[in-house]
Amino acid sequence: MGGTQSQRPRVLGSVRRPVTRADVAQLAGVSTAVVSYVLNDGPRPVAPRTAERVRQAVALLGYRPNASARALRRGRTETIGLILGDSLNPLFTEYTSQLTKAAAMRGEALLIRDSRQDATVEAQIVEQLIDRQVDGLLFASPYSSSVNPHALRAAGIPSVLIDCPGPVPGRLSVGPAAQEGAERLVDHLIEHGRGRIALVVGERGFGHPDPRELGWQFAQHRSQLRPGPVIRVPFTREGGYTAGRQLTRAGEGVDAVFASNDLQAAGVLRALHEGGARVPDDIAVVSFDGTRESEFCWPPLTVAQQDLPRMAEVAIDLLHSEPDAPGRHVRVPTTLVTRASCGCPGVHA
Amino acid sequence: MGGTQSQRPRVLGSVRRPVTRADVAQLAGVSTAVVSYVLNDGPRPVAPRTAERVRQAVALLGYRPNASARALRRGRTETIGLILGDSLNPLFTEYTSQLTKAAAMRGEALLIRDSRQDATVEAQIVEQLIDRQVDGLLFASPYSSSVNPHALRAAGIPSVLIDCPGPVPGRLSVGPAAQEGAERLVDHLIEHGRGRIALVVGERGFGHPDPRELGWQFAQHRSQLRPGPVIRVPFTREGGYTAGRQLTRAGEGVDAVFASNDLQAAGVLRALHEGGARVPDDIAVVSFDGTRESEFCWPPLTVAQQDLPRMAEVAIDLLHSEPDAPGRHVRVPTTLVTRASCGCPGVHA
Repeated sequence: MGGTQSQRPRVLGSVRRPVTRADVAQLAGVSTAVVSYVLNDGPRPVAPRTAERVRQAVALLGYRPNASARALRRGRTETIGLILGDSLNPLFTEYTSQLTKAAAMRGEALLIRDSRQDATVEAQIVEQLIDRQVDGLLFASPYSSSVNPHALRAAGIPSVLIDCPGPVPGRLSVGPAAQEGAERLVDHLIEHGRGRIALVVGERGFGHPDPRELGWQFAQHRSQLRPGPVIRVPFTREGGYTAGRQLTRAGEGVDAVFASNDLQAAGVLRALHEGGARVPDDIAVVSFDGTRESEFCWPPLTVAQQDLPRMAEVAIDLLHSEPDAPGRHVRVPTTLVTRASCGCPGVHA
Repeated sequence: MGGTQSQRPRVLGSVRRPVTRADVAQLAGVSTAVVSYVLNDGPRPVAPRTAERVRQAVALLGYRPNASARALRRGRTETIGLILGDSLNPLFTEYTSQLTKAAAMRGEALLIRDSRQDATVEAQIVEQLIDRQVDGLLFASPYSSSVNPHALRAAGIPSVLIDCPGPVPGRLSVGPAAQEGAERLVDHLIEHGRGRIALVVGERGFGHPDPRELGWQFAQHRSQLRPGPVIRVPFTREGGYTAGRQLTRAGEGVDAVFASNDLQAAGVLRALHEGGARVPDDIAVVSFDGTRESEFCWPPLTVAQQDLPRMAEVAIDLLHSEPDAPGRHVRVPTTLVTRASCGCPGVHA
């Protein structure tokens, strides 16, 4: 064989298929087994000069060992499945970004799917991800607690519920300390002198009362306020808009609204503006989540902000806990961020 | 061995590790080779009664053939890498959702990474995705056209630029018909009688002028308007906010603003509200993108809406075009969606 340097352009120009171990072996003048020994550092020894020739051939050809073969050997794909209930909700976009970072710290990549909050779709996605042999599954979907953990365990796949309101028997989970966060928000409205506080929240449905609803109830009760009206709509901008229109028409003397997520708050704000209400003068609005969008609503929203970087770290740590660990739930505190929508002075000109 | 039915609970209860081909072989009373022949439909024939026994054992144990082994055999991982420049921009969240759907139609899943608009980070991500042997790469990042296509070709990996302003020699790409969309938006402002239209856009930098800027120039020129001021800021809400504050202070008689994306528009709106300007009465605002958020800004935004479902289909089709196809660019038209921010009656109460 001629000098390897001069061969480079010819080889690159003609190769359209991926470079294989056989190409490396041919260029280095060794068997494919010897190439393996060099790349895997064993199991048999290789003479230093031969090993050097193999490494040069690898570099010249731009050869990359086969990831599928490596995964087969290690029994790990270094891939984690993430199942979202609504991938268009900015909260989950921001959470995904943090989860991607936390997983990358362990050399893992995420395969992200959206169940569109449909239990049947979710079951299919879980099947597909198991077929792809993900090393673990993260669920941020309202149906996730109904996924059969036995099936996952039979496939050797650990799983964590990552947007979970509270403990689920036998499962690993993480979620915001939502009741405390909601109480703090409603207390803040009461400190501003608001006395009739409406709640916008989702449908009841999974047995447990929503912790944000509990927080709203407790705060009013503690201050001996008559509970404001509850409006149940989907956790979407459109849902919030419907709720806001209802509030505008009802004229029940409501002087504040607690929306259970930022999307609902955006819809409530639009309906109030259209109805001619002044925010916060006539009616204050606060919400739960604290996505970037909440800072650019008009007026900017006062929120209970979720600590997504921390929740993402906890989620990935739980995924790597002992396979036979008993169920465990981690609650991550939220932060009260005050802006103009509650009546705080803020930047509102 | 006893009846297979009665064995089910015992087997499931004790298996913590993944079920293997050997487990299936043991339960069915055959060799592992026979299990392979049945599952792969060859290469050797298996007696029908034996094959039935193997299939029963597979079902009872919940055995899944190894995806890594399948990928190694087929030479395809059925995974596509998607590199975003800003995964938190709702435009790319919505685009990603459409790309996920289009890829799923071909049985492919996306591995999504964020380059944070950093060329070095992007190069690392490309390396990592090549190491994972993705079947193709989609780039929606300003640096993507600088990625060395030779390296990708040497690894046998096709790639498509999916947020591309125009043709790039030798590359496959798709993007919105941005100049036409921008012209139509600015024409619409002129129809509303606006005569001094500011442009909020990003820094110049990649050689080509931004097609949105060209569209803004052409529309004003055709109507013999003096070009309005240009404010160059990042494509973020914060960037738009800076631009909006500048406009408020300058008082250059500007009566309309064209923001080059929805994020900038959200920032412009906040600055205008804070400055006490009435939108659209004092100053109209329009933008390019048409994400869901644009409908819930205050006032709701008039936009040139990108056709993301169509662009996603085109992107995935291009990825599957002939490996030796010459460069090609597909321009997908935008739609003018009028809401209240331009002065159209709309829902504005």
